[in-house]
Amino acid sequence: MTALSAGATIGILGGGQLGRLLSLAAARLGFNVQIFCPEAGCPAARVSAGHITADYRDADALAAFAAACDVITYEFENVPVDTVTLLAQAGVPVRPGSKSLTVSQDRVEEKNFLNRCGIQTARFEAIAQTSAIAPALEALGGAGVLKTRRDGYDGKGQVRIVTGDDLAAAHKALANAPTILEQLVPFEREISVIVAQSVQGETVCFDVPENTHVNGILRRSVVPTGLADAVETRARDAGKQLIKALDHIGVLALEFFVLEDGSLLANEFAPRVHNSGHWTPQACQTCQFEQHIRAIAGWPLAPVTRYFDVEMRNLLGEEAIAPELDLSGQDQLTLYGKRRANPGRKMGHVVRRLGFAESKPPITDKG
Amino acid sequence: MTALSAGATIGILGGGQLGRLLSLAAARLGFNVQIFCPEAGCPAARVSAGHITADYRDADALAAFAAACDVITYEFENVPVDTVTLLAQAGVPVRPGSKSLTVSQDRVEEKNFLNRCGIQTARFEAIAQTSAIAPALEALGGAGVLKTRRDGYDGKGQVRIVTGDDLAAAHKALANAPTILEQLVPFEREISVIVAQSVQGETVCFDVPENTHVNGILRRSVVPTGLADAVETRARDAGKQLIKALDHIGVLALEFFVLEDGSLLANEFAPRVHNSGHWTPQACQTCQFEQHIRAIAGWPLAPVTRYFDVEMRNLLGEEAIAPELDLSGQDQLTLYGKRRANPGRKMGHVVRRLGFAESKPPITDKG
Repeated sequence: MTALSAGATIGILGGGQLGRLLSLAAARLGFNVQIFCPEAGCPAARVSAGHITADYRDADALAAFAAACDVITYEFENVPVDTVTLLAQAGVPVRPGSKSLTVSQDRVEEKNFLNRCGIQTARFEAIAQTSAIAPALEALGGAGVLKTRRDGYDGKGQVRIVTGDDLAAAHKALANAPTILEQLVPFEREISVIVAQSVQGETVCFDVPENTHVNGILRRSVVPTGLADAVETRARDAGKQLIKALDHIGVLALEFFVLEDGSLLANEFAPRVHNSGHWTPQACQTCQFEQHIRAIAGWPLAPVTRYFDVEMRNLLGEEAIAPELDLSGQDQLTLYGKRRANPGRKMGHVVRRLGFAESKPPITDKG
Repeated sequence: MTALSAGATIGILGGGQLGRLLSLAAARLGFNVQIFCPEAGCPAARVSAGHITADYRDADALAAFAAACDVITYEFENVPVDTVTLLAQAGVPVRPGSKSLTVSQDRVEEKNFLNRCGIQTARFEAIAQTSAIAPALEALGGAGVLKTRRDGYDGKGQVRIVTGDDLAAAHKALANAPTILEQLVPFEREISVIVAQSVQGETVCFDVPENTHVNGILRRSVVPTGLADAVETRARDAGKQLIKALDHIGVLALEFFVLEDGSLLANEFAPRVHNSGHWTPQACQTCQFEQHIRAIAGWPLAPVTRYFDVEMRNLLGEEAIAPELDLSGQDQLTLYGKRRANPGRKMGHVVRRLGFAESKPPITDKG
């Protein structure tokens, strides 16, 4: 496929903040964006040329969507795989494809896939029924995190357990769904790799941020991490290995635990732009949103030279509303246009430029 | 007025690239945008929450627009003044107001206003009929630019004349409209000041770019100019004086000729964000588009610290289309989503970061 021309239409499955930020990036490159999302007036639709408000399984609506788009992407990993298959059958390229979805939608599949790529994870056990939890917990040393295999996000769908807990109650709290028990990892910190792959097979990684989660929700990402170069290089290499193995076109994010000895355990990946990359628009030559749009449009990837040291903080719930919100413009503010500020809901983020990046490469080699 | 909350609706009169870039900036701050423009599917509407497609004199459509918006602004200076008056009467604040429009829509009014503010312009003569051209040309030294008083842009509606030319033909080429004859200025270069004023009366100037026009169309802006500080300070002071005198809330741009001795002659002003400020998103802590949205929303103005030396180049006509277009991402690309690449039409622009700005102030004074 040749590169899409400006004026072409990009379809996005999903209408949340990631779809919104992708749509804004696509607009800057001259594309039109169509959103497909069941929620009327969703954040992404309000900045896009069109919106099909329909269920992800509505075949007629999907056919209309396919007909309207030159390429389609998704902004979250819980889009039904059948939806993507149907769109692809209608003849429109879906990037990334269904493989990244299939693998990332099931925590057991995901960890097996990572391990097969040579990327180490914490130990884990698949749990088919409640009675399997106790022996699995024993095998993992008496402490772990029980998570639903599917549909978890932002710390939802998971519970910590130790030997002696009421395991049946814990499982019931997860609706007795198929689960995975993951070993509790004594990590020193968390980092993530944000990497893109183009149609041409080129890959480019952003600098690695350190991420702080509170109650399972990302609160803060900081770049640089201060970790040894070798650690970050291993993380980046793993990211590239994964994106190649998935034949993933676009951006993906791979999250790691860093242990005290510098070893890395992959936690999970997101087959999309990622909250821990929300500092890239203010810090880098090209941001994760533009990079994703470039990749799925068949454009070459762009340089991601980082110019600034930055801190990104999420605004949750009422933090995004005056008088809590700082309107001074000292920090760069991005708000998602969500209508209700439910507690803990991601409403926006701020990026603070802390200083110029240490190793400032020559900015341009052109005359 | 208190500051608008994210989720409020900003109305924009006009649907071109400036409206589009303003809408994208408003979206990043969480606002919804409604476009009012006679052209269906205009560039701004395709990135906005809503669009009223109607004539600027359609009172019913304007009433509906006023009802839908918390504040209204305009993206070009040829919006009829009556339109703004009607919207203001409907009770919605229009920022900037009608004064900036009234003054800037007529080149004679504009120059008189500038002169009354103590801002020097080239000499000029108002021309009511063809017979007045010859004596005016004589008075200005035998060479000048004859321009329609109203509705000119990008070098349209003007013609150079010297003694001995067929003046009747020249006037006829401008449809015998009321015109102004401006003295030809032997300028060394052109610069512009982009300045914002908040509801609270605070003003903030961006660094001054040097602008190169070809055939009356801006081709290139470069920052810094290399001019003596004193020259730029005089330009900035004039910009602030003008914005105060106009009671203008939002961004405006004042263009100058710089003579060899460093003296400045104001050429014209635009009561809006300006093409010569299109480098600000890539170079500054806050860009002209966000600054304008902040101002009209009643927010405080943000710092505009410039981090990079940059060059902005306009993409005209087919320059915005492959294979002429460089997709590498070395330069930052912005395309406007216009559907036809007519020769000379502004289709997009690129910004090249040339290096870090000389005097890099401390980035943040926060902990």
